[in-house]
Amino acid sequence: MTQFKNVTVDKAANIYFDGKVTSRTIFFEDGTKKTLGIMMPGEYEFATVLKEEMDITAGTLQYKLADGEWETIDGSGVFYVPANESFQLNVHTVVDYCCSYLEEE
Amino acid sequence: MTQFKNVTVDKAANIYFDGKVTSRTIFFEDGTKKTLGIMMPGEYEFATVLKEEMDITAGTLQYKLADGEWETIDGSGVFYVPANESFQLNVHTVVDYCCSYLEEE
Repeated sequence: MTQFKNVTVDKAANIYFDGKVTSRTIFFEDGTKKTLGIMMPGEYEFATVLKEEMDITAGTLQYKLADGEWETIDGSGVFYVPANESFQLNVHTVVDYCCSYLEEE
Repeated sequence: MTQFKNVTVDKAANIYFDGKVTSRTIFFEDGTKKTLGIMMPGEYEFATVLKEEMDITAGTLQYKLADGEWETIDGSGVFYVPANESFQLNVHTVVDYCCSYLEEE
């Protein structure tokens, strides 16, 4: 199983949409962070500050970027959201994800 | 905010009850582990292997140990479950918890 080593974890969860979306923030030695999250079925809209890599590790969802079409991920897949944009999610089954916050290059 | 430092985190979540209870496992340098979890409203029964410290950090629930009465935690509180026992939970609002697995002394 993939593990993240030598990290710092916030004890408190991030809780959104009445708990239907929750995550844990982990901090790496190089100053970067990720969130490990769960999304229950539902429709959500999020906005980014930094560019985000959304790594879906379980579940089925559709996502739509600001200038894109609806795309489907079933079981596993990755998509990227530019900084300072909104994106929509339609979560069909419980999703386990890892979100990385990326500094623009 | 309380943080756990120098830990290892499993990327994949633990998912129970169709995602209504989920957690992340974190491993400490001394060989111990904790899970950081979320419980959506509902009724659940769990069984322990090791003794567990259930540290509720947000939400409202009732718990009942095998030989106990229903007790209420509202917002924050701690209870302990002996090894190899079942306990019941009635979760009223989204609960954020930290479960520590304790070797018997």
